[in-house]
Amino acid sequence: MNKVRVAAFSISIDGFGAGPRQDLVNPLGVRGRELHGWFFDTEVFGRIHGHSGGRQGVDNDFARRSFENVGAWIMGRNMFGPVRGPWLDESWKGWWGENPPYHTPVFVLTHNPRAPLTMAGGTTFYFVTDGLDSALRQAREAAGDKDVRIGGGVSTLRQYLIAGRIEEMHLAISPVLLGEGEPLFSGIDLPALGFTVVKSVAGEAATHVVIAK
Amino acid sequence: MNKVRVAAFSISIDGFGAGPRQDLVNPLGVRGRELHGWFFDTEVFGRIHGHSGGRQGVDNDFARRSFENVGAWIMGRNMFGPVRGPWLDESWKGWWGENPPYHTPVFVLTHNPRAPLTMAGGTTFYFVTDGLDSALRQAREAAGDKDVRIGGGVSTLRQYLIAGRIEEMHLAISPVLLGEGEPLFSGIDLPALGFTVVKSVAGEAATHVVIAK
Repeated sequence: MNKVRVAAFSISIDGFGAGPRQDLVNPLGVRGRELHGWFFDTEVFGRIHGHSGGRQGVDNDFARRSFENVGAWIMGRNMFGPVRGPWLDESWKGWWGENPPYHTPVFVLTHNPRAPLTMAGGTTFYFVTDGLDSALRQAREAAGDKDVRIGGGVSTLRQYLIAGRIEEMHLAISPVLLGEGEPLFSGIDLPALGFTVVKSVAGEAATHVVIAK
Repeated sequence: MNKVRVAAFSISIDGFGAGPRQDLVNPLGVRGRELHGWFFDTEVFGRIHGHSGGRQGVDNDFARRSFENVGAWIMGRNMFGPVRGPWLDESWKGWWGENPPYHTPVFVLTHNPRAPLTMAGGTTFYFVTDGLDSALRQAREAAGDKDVRIGGGVSTLRQYLIAGRIEEMHLAISPVLLGEGEPLFSGIDLPALGFTVVKSVAGEAATHVVIAK
């Protein structure tokens, strides 16, 4: 109940969770999209974007589970957008258009205050300026008896991992080499944090690994 | 023909190719054995150690291929043994007993000269003190039209990778978190070195990935 988890987080063979040099045309960093190849053609991804059809199977099952029982999301500011520094205006409303795929409260970590932003479909972005634990407290409260999903990006995940706040992570290891970008685990001792591998399943286009405390 | 390759090299989910603190009781570093769980119960591993039976399947196929068409091996001194500094005597003859599983010339990189060591079954260890490229030249010559296999450990692989000498690597990603040890790829940009993923196959107990130039 009320688990704090990461799900459907893709990494490369060489350990990167995002490519380098994020910008408007590369929301996941250069070549970052390739990490998510296993996800883009699934039925779940299609449905989010209003298409029917799409691939069924193991990858799709993990994609579906990643959205189940989620009562609130937390993300870093770079996952919300490419804007850095103060919000010059309120024109940036996320990468996802008018109806983002969250349908819950989403707590965005930032150093720069901004009023809450209510979108279609039940998603409201709340901008949290007083740190990780405040965001987590607010997300837990909003989630009720559902899970809090830490969406990303890499820096946000690393901070919550090191702080000991994440209980479960589902990783999708994609058959891709990035060579540069944001390494997810470098310098983090996961067994010392209490994690072991509880599941490892071959998907059609990625290897799905669940680690938990 | 005469490919320089790495094969059946196991890494953890968090990117370690060996555990920390190698010594006599932990030839692969602390918890390093867990990286190779996919290999130890295969038919190929059993046969090497004189047992019949053992597991067939994808893992076993990759294990078998790792030994096929190999005409010479190269390894770092730490893969050969736990002795550091000058060879005080010649009593250390490798981890593998009287009949090592190589059955070819094996070139051991070391800073400390030592006479060649001939073992049963066609394995001779040659101790090379004049560097990576000398060892590779000698291994190529010994291998004839067969492949040169760079056995390990992590430091030796990294040096040959950075020098651009490795053409193919078969990695076995094991569902294990080590947390500490020797990271295989950290700081190495594999795409910049020309590598892409050419194969990714789910084994019974590891994900097998082949990267090549």
